Amino acid sequence: MAMAAPPVKVYGPPLSTAVSRVLACLLEKDVAFHLVPVNMAKGEHKKTDYLNIQPFGQVPAFQDETISLFESRAICRYVSEKFSNQGNRGLYGLNLVEKASIDQWVEAEAQSFNPPSSVLVFQLAFAPMMKIEQDQGAIKQNEQKLAKVLDIYETRLGETRFLAGEEFTLADLSHLPNVQYLLMRTDRGEMFTSRKNVWRWWEEVSARDSWKKVVDMQNAPPPAAT
Amino acid sequence: MAMAAPPVKVYGPPLSTAVSRVLACLLEKDVAFHLVPVNMAKGEHKKTDYLNIQPFGQVPAFQDETISLFESRAICRYVSEKFSNQGNRGLYGLNLVEKASIDQWVEAEAQSFNPPSSVLVFQLAFAPMMKIEQDQGAIKQNEQKLAKVLDIYETRLGETRFLAGEEFTLADLSHLPNVQYLLMRTDRGEMFTSRKNVWRWWEEVSARDSWKKVVDMQNAPPPAAT
Repeated sequence: MAMAAPPVKVYGPPLSTAVSRVLACLLEKDVAFHLVPVNMAKGEHKKTDYLNIQPFGQVPAFQDETISLFESRAICRYVSEKFSNQGNRGLYGLNLVEKASIDQWVEAEAQSFNPPSSVLVFQLAFAPMMKIEQDQGAIKQNEQKLAKVLDIYETRLGETRFLAGEEFTLADLSHLPNVQYLLMRTDRGEMFTSRKNVWRWWEEVSARDSWKKVVDMQNAPPPAAT
Repeated sequence: MAMAAPPVKVYGPPLSTAVSRVLACLLEKDVAFHLVPVNMAKGEHKKTDYLNIQPFGQVPAFQDETISLFESRAICRYVSEKFSNQGNRGLYGLNLVEKASIDQWVEAEAQSFNPPSSVLVFQLAFAPMMKIEQDQGAIKQNEQKLAKVLDIYETRLGETRFLAGEEFTLADLSHLPNVQYLLMRTDRGEMFTSRKNVWRWWEEVSARDSWKKVVDMQNAPPPAAT
């Protein structure tokens, strides 16, 4: 019997959208992982030990055997390819054409969806918690940008069940963290509920076991301070 | 004898950084292409025919046989994988670990390098040409952001010859368009020349035949108005 692979390591809190993207991918692929806390409030992500594996001082960082990686979407690609024969086998496509479509929509998420979504999540959900004054101009501008992106998604999701085609893939998964926060932690959920196809898509993708487990991890009490 | 593949199609002007990224990749991979002009001044990128292949109304769009794609980095991945056995064979790595490192640095380019670089290229090079008032606050803020990214690159390029390791890959290629403009069309070249390893890297990567051909295409007179 083959030895089970040792668990991979993910550094960072599940509350980070980029960390939760990687966790959702690992759960889809049935890959065992060990979550290493990084106390960002204490600035651990800016200390030398951490900077050695993540030079930008951001979360997540990732380690598997001899490889150390950063950038959530690069980690998701690596995990999907290395563990192609387990868990959700089609997560990164089964052939070159499927993969190209997935890469295209992962890039759309990274380049067009993520920038306005991250600003809105920060301004509407986190700035008040952190007692930072909200930038109303940035909120308005990014609402308009996100609305345009969602109009394009609405059309696309009227043609295909998921973003990259008829199956749930990395392209959908990559959107989960920011949509979750926009719906649950801001009052702008109407941007999603008002778009029929986007909302049908969200109800389906957010119901996946992998994502429900990530949300449970986000809602669990944080680890004791170290 | 196998029939040569028909040329792929690239829509958009070589002056666009995203279009030139794709062109550099096609030239590295010795892939024949047909460049289809898109008259952006006349708004052709916002018309229905074009939006059918690029719903965001951006350049480039790309077609190969039955597949139609957008997002320059997704197109580069597709081209590198489909034509893995021709041209620069290692452009997207020769194994899973090399590929992961390339994906990581392509993402660093997309997420950390490109945002401040694009703002600076627009504000410093294009805004004056378009008679748009420069936003001095945005220039200052993005210079600081880019300087931090370049400090990280300076350290990295003191350890490895290229960003993803000892070979020129998509990770380096993806940076060429914005660095070229920052050096040639703005007065901020000192950000690169003052960093020893970054400058050594730029001199090597910008000397590739593929990139020199792209720069020639950028400097050629535009096609006659249609």
